[in-house]
Amino acid sequence: MPGDASRITIADIAREAGVSTPTVSKVLNGHSQVAPETRARVEELLQSHNYLRRRARPKETVGLVDLAIREVDNLWSAEVVQGVQREAAEHGLGVVVWATHGSAADTLRWLDNVTRRGSDGIILAVTDLTPAQRKRVAPLGIPLAVVDPVGSHDPGIPSVGATNWQGGMTATQHLIELGHRRIAILQGLEEALCARARLDGYRSALEAAGIAIDPALIRPGDFYYTTGYSGMRDLLALPEPPTAVFASSDLMALGAYEAVRQAGLRVGYDVSIVGFDDVPSAAWASPPLTTVHQPLREMAAMATRIVLQGAQAVLPMGTQRMELATRLVVRESTGPAPDRPRT
Amino acid sequence: MPGDASRITIADIAREAGVSTPTVSKVLNGHSQVAPETRARVEELLQSHNYLRRRARPKETVGLVDLAIREVDNLWSAEVVQGVQREAAEHGLGVVVWATHGSAADTLRWLDNVTRRGSDGIILAVTDLTPAQRKRVAPLGIPLAVVDPVGSHDPGIPSVGATNWQGGMTATQHLIELGHRRIAILQGLEEALCARARLDGYRSALEAAGIAIDPALIRPGDFYYTTGYSGMRDLLALPEPPTAVFASSDLMALGAYEAVRQAGLRVGYDVSIVGFDDVPSAAWASPPLTTVHQPLREMAAMATRIVLQGAQAVLPMGTQRMELATRLVVRESTGPAPDRPRT
Repeated sequence: MPGDASRITIADIAREAGVSTPTVSKVLNGHSQVAPETRARVEELLQSHNYLRRRARPKETVGLVDLAIREVDNLWSAEVVQGVQREAAEHGLGVVVWATHGSAADTLRWLDNVTRRGSDGIILAVTDLTPAQRKRVAPLGIPLAVVDPVGSHDPGIPSVGATNWQGGMTATQHLIELGHRRIAILQGLEEALCARARLDGYRSALEAAGIAIDPALIRPGDFYYTTGYSGMRDLLALPEPPTAVFASSDLMALGAYEAVRQAGLRVGYDVSIVGFDDVPSAAWASPPLTTVHQPLREMAAMATRIVLQGAQAVLPMGTQRMELATRLVVRESTGPAPDRPRT
Repeated sequence: MPGDASRITIADIAREAGVSTPTVSKVLNGHSQVAPETRARVEELLQSHNYLRRRARPKETVGLVDLAIREVDNLWSAEVVQGVQREAAEHGLGVVVWATHGSAADTLRWLDNVTRRGSDGIILAVTDLTPAQRKRVAPLGIPLAVVDPVGSHDPGIPSVGATNWQGGMTATQHLIELGHRRIAILQGLEEALCARARLDGYRSALEAAGIAIDPALIRPGDFYYTTGYSGMRDLLALPEPPTAVFASSDLMALGAYEAVRQAGLRVGYDVSIVGFDDVPSAAWASPPLTTVHQPLREMAAMATRIVLQGAQAVLPMGTQRMELATRLVVRESTGPAPDRPRT
């Protein structure tokens, strides 16, 4: 048995770790001026002695929620920022928006800033913390929630997503119902769980309809315009190009539009395209984009409620994961499969 | 002469205003629980005694910059958020993003939040503070800068914009050089100075080319998609529709695209369209949009530097206003004027 938590002091931890008491304080307060191996040793002892849990107590609120998000340069992120901001404002709180660019340096700068000023809650959106970074956040006692987790679910951290698998399946079924048989997918960021779920939904719909999966029709991407464009260009150059494409994001769908236009073809007639997200630009595309709506603002608002009110108050009992429903929005970028000579 | 500032105390102010000393403190600290008329009286006395200036002293930094912005639902705002965030992160600071929706209630909630936690700088983007709100911010001693001011320049507040007039003129000249004579404008939010400057640039280019200004070709709008769409639809319904349109924002240009498509016409052939902003979606439009690039990220970064380093360190001596250059980016939405029978 580890020692009795109720009697463990910082001095005990310091002695056991072979460091000074102020060093233990620094680790507890999340300062960055501690050698990594020292920090690891102290954190392990704090954990094994169950020190952190005992220390948890109601704190004064800071007045801020943190949103760490991969990028802030697109309408997907604008929707998430809006959802968090509105919900936080309802509670009288401000939202600190920090783009991590998936980079360790940017994430550390953010962590330094959070440590210095405190926060009432942290929301991660399509970005992740390394185990070391998580250990730095833990002692700050700030509730954490994730929107669209990257990598595998951490059972200890509440997360909010959409029914991505269902959405990928619905999008593909819509194309099958329109008579398409050569249906391609422009994939999102491979490491993002949501992109993998959409791919699996696509595969399942094809399998259920008895259509063989052609690996040549599965194109890698990263959710962004450029990979949508190049993926579509490559697809159109195939000996037998697809008549329909499911893009894993609206941005990729817009890239696909341009490749179709440059090939002298028309979206919705010669090639049908379905997107995913239903960000405002989907309706602004010309022709307006058929896409899978995911309630990004609501997902972001939900993650905000989780960090402010506690997962227990918001999520179904015993769960740490909530998926909000997606639904297909049919606009003008999809149409019947073009008649082709059947040989 | 007002009293000697160096000897005026809070107690003096309280006596003169006929209120308690804590009430004066509340006003100084920006608390909201002071009756408006009491606040006004105290603020007037503080100002007439020059109390605030004397009180200014180096403060500990908070670790945060505030960005109060009209909306966060579009790519214009995403560019501004990015510019502020990157610059602030360079200084190790977080950015609190707050959408005011141009509403007094939302602005007050933000001011309450700022007052509570403090801030190292405030940036306003296409949003404004009422005189009463400015009086609440003043005693907090937080530096302020404005991106794209709404309404008239306040000479006391540094502001950063783009050369909007020049941009409007360049866009219109481009269309004139392509042979267009019926050139319309889809206007931005009327109260925004930047929209007015673009309109004046449009008028000047037409006048310089000896083309009479037709009021029927000047359509009101608000920078958003819907007014671009409806404005273009109305223009195409005119007895003599325009062959070219200058839209005061890229979003309005996208709305115009769809009206052109629905009329069975082609952008860049039957109707030329120029936008303004050059947000990423300009290049993602199909066909890619010819537009006036304004360096939004750089403008936002400049405003951030102003609040963090002081206007003196950043702006040319003696000025409070900086305009960054705009430039025309020619893509595929503009082409020669269609041949028409000249009667």
